[in-house]
Amino acid sequence: MKPITFVLAAIGAVAGMAAASGQADRETAPIYEIKIPPGYRDWQLISVNHLAGGALKQLRAQLGNDIAIKAFREGRLPFPDGTIIAALHWNEASSDENNKILAIGFPGAGLQSFVAGPAENIQFMVKDSKKYFGTGGWGFADFKDGKSASEAVHKTCFPCHEPAKDRDYVFTRYAR
Amino acid sequence: MKPITFVLAAIGAVAGMAAASGQADRETAPIYEIKIPPGYRDWQLISVNHLAGGALKQLRAQLGNDIAIKAFREGRLPFPDGTIIAALHWNEASSDENNKILAIGFPGAGLQSFVAGPAENIQFMVKDSKKYFGTGGWGFADFKDGKSASEAVHKTCFPCHEPAKDRDYVFTRYAR
Repeated sequence: MKPITFVLAAIGAVAGMAAASGQADRETAPIYEIKIPPGYRDWQLISVNHLAGGALKQLRAQLGNDIAIKAFREGRLPFPDGTIIAALHWNEASSDENNKILAIGFPGAGLQSFVAGPAENIQFMVKDSKKYFGTGGWGFADFKDGKSASEAVHKTCFPCHEPAKDRDYVFTRYAR
Repeated sequence: MKPITFVLAAIGAVAGMAAASGQADRETAPIYEIKIPPGYRDWQLISVNHLAGGALKQLRAQLGNDIAIKAFREGRLPFPDGTIIAALHWNEASSDENNKILAIGFPGAGLQSFVAGPAENIQFMVKDSKKYFGTGGWGFADFKDGKSASEAVHKTCFPCHEPAKDRDYVFTRYAR
């Protein structure tokens, strides 16, 4: 899935595209028929990253279910069926309360703290080599506030992940 | 603990201070007598953040043991005895492989991806209201490559956390 499909959402295209595609059940992602996996917020951490450009600043964390975590730690490729990767994306917020303390502790250093603000979206990659044979064995899903993005958004996922074919279409690397 | 005690380490002061304080066992943090908790990397995610200033750029994740996670989710203050918070600090690295894909998918947007590079240090806060009565009930520990920072570094932890007294000395908030 495109790491920045929220850009499409941000320009207000989602509602229109969803209507055009005739989606009825917005709790299920189109094309791949994926619902939000229960308990994903409890999964273990794969890594963190940070995306910036223009006004856009996001803090991100990737979590994995047990199958995903085991595969990442063992460096196993391709990922086995049953792997699920969750990508949590928050809008980055400047932390005034942290910055005040940094300024006292390290005067003149200009240290700035940025923390996870409001959630932007959550994305999932689900490995099922038979069901998702046509997209590298992966299904993709994008949710905001519990509701799925449109079919048009989901059509952008696999093309963007294709360049990472030699890593089984997964960008994230395990952070040690 | 000061979120940026690594600044002291970075200027090469650690080795000298450790020698001066006569530390023998560098696997145990001085003052608070804390070892790295087994299995901490498997703990659940509290939040992520990002620290920047001058040449310094870090991506950070806070993980919690079961007691910590339960308290964060319930908004319980003060944190109960047995709470352990782990703060994993990585040096931020620009991701050329991600940036190439972003440039293709979003030409002209100037999007930049930063990922977790080499680990800088790991810090722990351990709640034991009796043992650590004199420091708000918290013990603090700072490790790099499995070895503890010096006593001098550890003396900076509590003074920096004191301004967060109304949140039981914890800066991090749970990211939903």
